[in-house]
Amino acid sequence: VAVVGSGDDGAPTLAAAEEAGRRLAEAGAVVICGGLGGVMAAACRGAVGAGGLTVGILPGAEADAANPWVRVPVPTGLGELRNGVVVRSADAVLAIGGEYGTLVEVAFALKVGRPVVGLGTWGLRRPDGRPDRSLVEAPDVATAVADVLALGRRRGQRAP
Amino acid sequence: VAVVGSGDDGAPTLAAAEEAGRRLAEAGAVVICGGLGGVMAAACRGAVGAGGLTVGILPGAEADAANPWVRVPVPTGLGELRNGVVVRSADAVLAIGGEYGTLVEVAFALKVGRPVVGLGTWGLRRPDGRPDRSLVEAPDVATAVADVLALGRRRGQRAP
Amino acid sequence: VAVVGSGDDGAPTLAAAEEAGRRLAEAGAVVICGGLGGVMAAACRGAVGAGGLTVGILPGAEADAANPWVRVPVPTGLGELRNGVVVRSADAVLAIGGEYGTLVEVAFALKVGRPVVGLGTWGLRRPDGRPDRSLVEAPDVATAVADVLALGRRRGQRAP
Amino acid sequence: VAVVGSGDDGAPTLAAAEEAGRRLAEAGAVVICGGLGGVMAAACRGAVGAGGLTVGILPGAEADAANPWVRVPVPTGLGELRNGVVVRSADAVLAIGGEYGTLVEVAFALKVGRPVVGLGTWGLRRPDGRPDRSLVEAPDVATAVADVLALGRRRGQRAP
Repeated sequence: VAVVGSGDDGAPTLAAAEEAGRRLAEAGAVVICGGLGGVMAAACRGAVGAGGLTVGILPGAEADAANPWVRVPVPTGLGELRNGVVVRSADAVLAIGGEYGTLVEVAFALKVGRPVVGLGTWGLRRPDGRPDRSLVEAPDVATAVADVLALGRRRGQRAP
Repeated sequence: VAVVGSGDDGAPTLAAAEEAGRRLAEAGAVVICGGLGGVMAAACRGAVGAGGLTVGILPGAEADAANPWVRVPVPTGLGELRNGVVVRSADAVLAIGGEYGTLVEVAFALKVGRPVVGLGTWGLRRPDGRPDRSLVEAPDVATAVADVLALGRRRGQRAP
Repeated sequence: VAVVGSGDDGAPTLAAAEEAGRRLAEAGAVVICGGLGGVMAAACRGAVGAGGLTVGILPGAEADAANPWVRVPVPTGLGELRNGVVVRSADAVLAIGGEYGTLVEVAFALKVGRPVVGLGTWGLRRPDGRPDRSLVEAPDVATAVADVLALGRRRGQRAP
Repeated sequence: VAVVGSGDDGAPTLAAAEEAGRRLAEAGAVVICGGLGGVMAAACRGAVGAGGLTVGILPGAEADAANPWVRVPVPTGLGELRNGVVVRSADAVLAIGGEYGTLVEVAFALKVGRPVVGLGTWGLRRPDGRPDRSLVEAPDVATAVADVLALGRRRGQRAP
């Protein structure tokens, strides 16, 4: 499961990200993220605290930019294009809060068919004026994690 | 100027894209797009008809997937990540209609600081519930082209 | 440490790759590779048999193309450009046998300053006619693994 | 045709690159390169002087790093991975002199099936000890340009 969110967000969002990381690790999921600070670091810290495996898909060319809770750093040298690799590496995406980088990841996930669960994140109105229903907003962390695990598991089983 | 939109859209959207391509070429702008069909082909056709230069940043590894109005095909082999290169190659972005791929390009443009003008495209609500004002929706093609040219020119002059 | 080599190579090369994977895992190194078959699968099999962690940086967009011994698949969707990410993710590179894809990885590693040890791999003559001494050819698997671990450790300590 | 070579090479190499750019443009070929200085700038200068079209596939995220003779800058933000896009965008590759970046481009071209003509560039010895015959070394600029045009034309016609 990929956890996506801003590198620069407030304390309630970071607490939600840490709880999400912990819950995902407890369920046996690998936590994949962009490898930097903010929501990414909080989710990794939560996952590592619960004995989980964490992967950081980094924008830069060197592994040492990863936050200390990334177990497997992948320095892509792709810059912001690495957001697409974060999303592809996961069976489902959990978007927490977020700035434009998170919007890129949500959009990319919808484009390549990864299910997305949101927690206080972007809302999308389609060109025809209707809201986009593919991005499911969850009421709390526990529900968000349960939903993203269920969607990811379904996709993992269906994938050829 | 990058023109972004779906490869599979209706006739009014395609007519708007062709008119936008023509107007951009008449103003001396290079039309950059994803190089495939639909809005991309219509914008290129309009630009070439007015004697303009067109660049197609293709997802695949071979140039022959480009539509016939692409003067300079760039087959990246990047798949959907090529959307980020389309946006980076331009000083401003005009989004016409669109599916999820267009949303990726709009999001990426906002992320990397390219101004975006929309014409019947996605609407964005920020995580705090307010609409995002960076994506400017235009009332018609002539206004959209004038706005995107002005924004692109300002950025081109400011860029270091 | 990245182990690079062809997806389609003979039995002696595969046996060397499996032994290299085993020795790297026994030394505590993470084995990073392109995630597919041949030398990549043999190195992963060796590493997993010794309890090691394996990462597969895949060219395609779906994780299920990974060989069964990849613990962390990273489907990049970058096609052959993913070879650059394989190399960047490692502190040192071990090239075993190989076709043109391996040559890309060796060249990329030299370009971005990752030390490379070769085992029956490409030889390089510089434009001025002299052989390139940056690619060190090892006489056997045990020496190759010892060399690549020493070079990778030195780089890992030096990296900022 | 892509012209690849170092950003930092001596005067005879640069003179050869400028002559090659001029001859390619006179033959009606588009000159594609990495967009920066050295061999890249010399080839573009030669091509523009003969009225040709030049494309610069840049490593960085901004167009203004392009040399002044690049007509169509494509800022990829891919870093050194952009070398793969340079090669894919061409029907044939001319390698002049060069450092490791040029070796990456030669290797990538061989990997993805673009014919390569060399002019004082790298030599390759295959893992089985034999020289690699796919990289054709030319005796002078006129021959190199004639060869690369013939090979590129053959590929352009054959491509599906």
